[in-house]
Amino acid sequence: MEKIKVGIVGATGYAGAELVRLLLTHPYAEITAVSSVTYEGKKLSEVYPNFKEIAEYTLENSDTVIKKCDVIFASLPHGLSEPLAEKCIEAGKLLIDLGADFRMYDEKAYSDWYKREYSHPNLHKYAVYALPELYREKIKTAKIIGNPGCYPTSVALAVFPLLKNRLAKTEGIIIDSKSGVTGSGRGLTQGTHYPDTNEAFSAYKAGEHRHTPEIEQTLSDIAGKPVTVTFVPHLLPVNRGIESTVYMTLNDGVTKEQVVEAFKTAYENEQFVRLETLGNYANIKNVRMSNYCDISLHFDMRNNHVIVSSVIDNMVKGAAGQAIQNMNIRFGLPEETGILMPPQQF
Amino acid sequence: MEKIKVGIVGATGYAGAELVRLLLTHPYAEITAVSSVTYEGKKLSEVYPNFKEIAEYTLENSDTVIKKCDVIFASLPHGLSEPLAEKCIEAGKLLIDLGADFRMYDEKAYSDWYKREYSHPNLHKYAVYALPELYREKIKTAKIIGNPGCYPTSVALAVFPLLKNRLAKTEGIIIDSKSGVTGSGRGLTQGTHYPDTNEAFSAYKAGEHRHTPEIEQTLSDIAGKPVTVTFVPHLLPVNRGIESTVYMTLNDGVTKEQVVEAFKTAYENEQFVRLETLGNYANIKNVRMSNYCDISLHFDMRNNHVIVSSVIDNMVKGAAGQAIQNMNIRFGLPEETGILMPPQQF
Amino acid sequence: MEKIKVGIVGATGYAGAELVRLLLTHPYAEITAVSSVTYEGKKLSEVYPNFKEIAEYTLENSDTVIKKCDVIFASLPHGLSEPLAEKCIEAGKLLIDLGADFRMYDEKAYSDWYKREYSHPNLHKYAVYALPELYREKIKTAKIIGNPGCYPTSVALAVFPLLKNRLAKTEGIIIDSKSGVTGSGRGLTQGTHYPDTNEAFSAYKAGEHRHTPEIEQTLSDIAGKPVTVTFVPHLLPVNRGIESTVYMTLNDGVTKEQVVEAFKTAYENEQFVRLETLGNYANIKNVRMSNYCDISLHFDMRNNHVIVSSVIDNMVKGAAGQAIQNMNIRFGLPEETGILMPPQQF
Amino acid sequence: MEKIKVGIVGATGYAGAELVRLLLTHPYAEITAVSSVTYEGKKLSEVYPNFKEIAEYTLENSDTVIKKCDVIFASLPHGLSEPLAEKCIEAGKLLIDLGADFRMYDEKAYSDWYKREYSHPNLHKYAVYALPELYREKIKTAKIIGNPGCYPTSVALAVFPLLKNRLAKTEGIIIDSKSGVTGSGRGLTQGTHYPDTNEAFSAYKAGEHRHTPEIEQTLSDIAGKPVTVTFVPHLLPVNRGIESTVYMTLNDGVTKEQVVEAFKTAYENEQFVRLETLGNYANIKNVRMSNYCDISLHFDMRNNHVIVSSVIDNMVKGAAGQAIQNMNIRFGLPEETGILMPPQQF
Repeated sequence: MEKIKVGIVGATGYAGAELVRLLLTHPYAEITAVSSVTYEGKKLSEVYPNFKEIAEYTLENSDTVIKKCDVIFASLPHGLSEPLAEKCIEAGKLLIDLGADFRMYDEKAYSDWYKREYSHPNLHKYAVYALPELYREKIKTAKIIGNPGCYPTSVALAVFPLLKNRLAKTEGIIIDSKSGVTGSGRGLTQGTHYPDTNEAFSAYKAGEHRHTPEIEQTLSDIAGKPVTVTFVPHLLPVNRGIESTVYMTLNDGVTKEQVVEAFKTAYENEQFVRLETLGNYANIKNVRMSNYCDISLHFDMRNNHVIVSSVIDNMVKGAAGQAIQNMNIRFGLPEETGILMPPQQF
Repeated sequence: MEKIKVGIVGATGYAGAELVRLLLTHPYAEITAVSSVTYEGKKLSEVYPNFKEIAEYTLENSDTVIKKCDVIFASLPHGLSEPLAEKCIEAGKLLIDLGADFRMYDEKAYSDWYKREYSHPNLHKYAVYALPELYREKIKTAKIIGNPGCYPTSVALAVFPLLKNRLAKTEGIIIDSKSGVTGSGRGLTQGTHYPDTNEAFSAYKAGEHRHTPEIEQTLSDIAGKPVTVTFVPHLLPVNRGIESTVYMTLNDGVTKEQVVEAFKTAYENEQFVRLETLGNYANIKNVRMSNYCDISLHFDMRNNHVIVSSVIDNMVKGAAGQAIQNMNIRFGLPEETGILMPPQQF
Repeated sequence: MEKIKVGIVGATGYAGAELVRLLLTHPYAEITAVSSVTYEGKKLSEVYPNFKEIAEYTLENSDTVIKKCDVIFASLPHGLSEPLAEKCIEAGKLLIDLGADFRMYDEKAYSDWYKREYSHPNLHKYAVYALPELYREKIKTAKIIGNPGCYPTSVALAVFPLLKNRLAKTEGIIIDSKSGVTGSGRGLTQGTHYPDTNEAFSAYKAGEHRHTPEIEQTLSDIAGKPVTVTFVPHLLPVNRGIESTVYMTLNDGVTKEQVVEAFKTAYENEQFVRLETLGNYANIKNVRMSNYCDISLHFDMRNNHVIVSSVIDNMVKGAAGQAIQNMNIRFGLPEETGILMPPQQF
Repeated sequence: MEKIKVGIVGATGYAGAELVRLLLTHPYAEITAVSSVTYEGKKLSEVYPNFKEIAEYTLENSDTVIKKCDVIFASLPHGLSEPLAEKCIEAGKLLIDLGADFRMYDEKAYSDWYKREYSHPNLHKYAVYALPELYREKIKTAKIIGNPGCYPTSVALAVFPLLKNRLAKTEGIIIDSKSGVTGSGRGLTQGTHYPDTNEAFSAYKAGEHRHTPEIEQTLSDIAGKPVTVTFVPHLLPVNRGIESTVYMTLNDGVTKEQVVEAFKTAYENEQFVRLETLGNYANIKNVRMSNYCDISLHFDMRNNHVIVSSVIDNMVKGAAGQAIQNMNIRFGLPEETGILMPPQQF
């Protein structure tokens, strides 16, 4: 098979650099062009010295990337992917967008949380919200792939079997998530300055994080009715990893066994979702550097609560790995192609 | 004033060592004897080299400590404080117990969770659950001071104004807590081996942690009726600090302003509880090495939830500092004596 | 005794904030004014929330600090302390400068490494290089106190007994130092962005660090002849602490015992310098948050090398703590006043 | 090509687990059996949950591994590889030993530092010290491959061009190394308990580390005459990575340019050794999770010193990755087969 010519727009951000790292060993993809507004003209390895002698690409601009490539991965601040998508559609190129612009089906939900209108409303009909485990079929023919956010990925996989099988109530869902610092990006902020972050921990954007409507869109779709959630993220002093602890109330009469069975059934054919043995706990270290989502189930039957702990590597299953998984689906490749590296145990 | 002769039983555990560190600079207390079963006969500074030339105590046994001292701080595995308490009561010495044996007023709640009966049931009438901000008066005359657990301290202070003022429902309380690794103690385990803990994160003992009945005892007392909670702790890769994110449902018609006002009123005279300005987040780094509890309030009014983030240093306000605060109260000293060090900012 | 009115110019940098933290509990000093160019008019607790309700100072400008205070601590980029010193001298106020401007006695050595001439050459006659353990007498009458750099403090104390007693050669001295990230300051850089610093380690400014001439000045003074050193600092992924491993060649016939004896003699009356028992290793954790310098001695007699490991808290003995130690000396107070807190063991 | 049947003796240690992780994606090797004394009969994924559903091997004993496999990787405490080697030689199987037993050509040097005699002296004639960049030819036909230690790998590559080209003196070589905590292994010790290791740093075994004779063996071989070194390792609070800063004195008249040229020439055809551009610094983060060794060159010409900073991932190039590199060489495979993953940038 001829290699897919892939390009990365925004290659010097963390998600972009992670795409480079993963695509370098993809057997059917070839990185053909990469771009960066800030570093145009420089070499990627000047920004990321780990790539020295391995990925000696010169950073170009996004137009060049679109021209040279079949698939364009974009990792841009919200608002910038819409004009890029227009060019891709015109050029007949596939866009896999890791940003937020093409995740919401409802413009109002988007504009309420992102505080801007769509600049290209007509493009959104081409876009698919691309969480493979839930929406694999739609992805196969999408022209624009809206790659899910990191938190929503961890949450949707944690909740899916419960809502799909009507085992838990759609009200009162509490999501307490913790993310490693790469989730905040490469840009400098006081809050991610080493001495301010190390040995520190706090919540942020409680009830206000922009991933909330994305989570609610998916949960509503699974439940078949509007679902709202209380979502509170926290900044975790590690480089990588998201853990989401989801609290839900079981429907009357639902047993532990039914819950466990529902998760087993839902994920028995999903190679990237692993269910922990009852009594064990999902831990971000067990999925580090991999595309796996580990899920553990816990119960507080005194209060009729099921507690789901879900972990992913925010840069892989939460961003670049899932984007490649989507590319594989779209191109009819085995879904795990190039992203089957085992997690790093320490 | 003559100095109080204080002794520490279990001085080589983390809480014991922290007591030593703090008591060394207490103006009205003098460390008179320290004990350790494991290291009896050795010098404390052999176990904790930071104490070299500063706290050159020889580790003795607990009987000697009781004999030499007026106040005995004990930090022991549960079950071991009851026989110690008997000796203290007999000798007319004050016991400040940092363990779990004297925290529960209801023996059944204790035995349900700790899987043992009281060995000295008659002693418990002398014991007071000693969270100063809630039970200051009782502490003044206690013969046995049951120093609260770390998680319960962070939670009780987070919830107190809400339940006391009947602003939030007593049902459906979710507590998602995260603790630094010192909370697991000095004993070696695979789960606290550096390469297994660093860059890792997971929940543990979800719905099963022994601090649950202690939390429920306090919340029930505040609410004036039985309260149960869903409590899930997590292990945080930092040395010190607990953050508890508490999710509660507001009673009908309760406003943000009422909630903020209730917290202001509750804590305006409490020097060790600080309320964050609305919009800021409590962070464990801001209370590190201090006896403060910082609290921030957040709201998800779409779901009628109040979210309280509460942080303490688990070794200070969550253990040794609060024990000294209790000693101060019991001896009529200004409550902040010896524990007013500012938090370490980085 | 009436309290000394102290002020801090540059109070929002890390060293400035540490001065505030330590001076808050100094029994004979009172923080009277603090300044910041960047945050003038704001409250210090807005920049450092750990100070909320504890140190609610409003940031003023440096002129106000000089006017209101008896002692001015300054922590400024090099070049800015000279004009400040002029104003202090004119106003008859003591300047304790934590910057680099008043550390060198030889202007040429300063200008060679700092690439600027003195703007106020006439002031330098008032300045004393204030490493208390070596230059205590001079400090007692200084008008300008040049507080030593962090690396030079750790190195000078490691080398002093060896050179003073002519036990080791003055040639071929190798200094391999490692510093926690607070040493780089509060300003944002890519190299101190959490995901770039965490799990990372490298040397920097090998053979080029500006602390080199300061180290050489002190070592030359001890040796009574010009000494040059090879000094390579490294960035250590911890918040606080410096470890310097110093490699020196023993003079012919010098024994281990002589070396140990020389260190014992040199520091037996120095309360802030602790010598490890032979076989133990100095560790930054044992001096954290304290003014101690711990030193351990090691030998490679196959190669006739003595290896000295010296550790300090870079923010305390390496900056703010030593500055207060110097103030105490200057004011005839017991040297340890306000800075005798035991190290934090974990 | 038929896959090589590989087995791992000591698969539950850190190096063993890393071998599993890397071999899982090796295109020409198949993990056929793994063993562990402690966990025999259990599944590897019970010890390392990251391997769940990926490497569901049952742990057997070493005899079974030898029987089933063509190549036996062993990662055992010293003294245990000799009897294993005897069985491998008898069975005609290749042993790649990651332990210390087959690294020294001189039994006396081994017994002086390891405090034991060889139990099977006759086997050592089959063994090759297998640092590929220096001894590639010998490895091609070895029956026992003595995989180098982690520190010696970082040091030998740092020193090789200097000694080979007679650019630096063989006397006075100082090696200051820092290793991540995985280097201490999976066994529990107080010194690697999280709260004791985190935010800590110290030297250990100064002048006494058992990697010293191994370093000296290689350097003597390069120089063609006996070389001794002063070697001081330090424990670095990160999971992975070794940085060695090597200080050497240039021979008279040697210029920077000559040094740089020598390194370029030595490594221009070595794909796993990367030379930093002058002015940049080797950083452990740039080689993390990869088989690369990055080297940067620095000069203190005032003291005629060249300073070489060399970094590797201690678990990959310092252990498992290099072992696979050696297997590839031995089997005539392209040397990079299965170990060409790019370093993880964050």
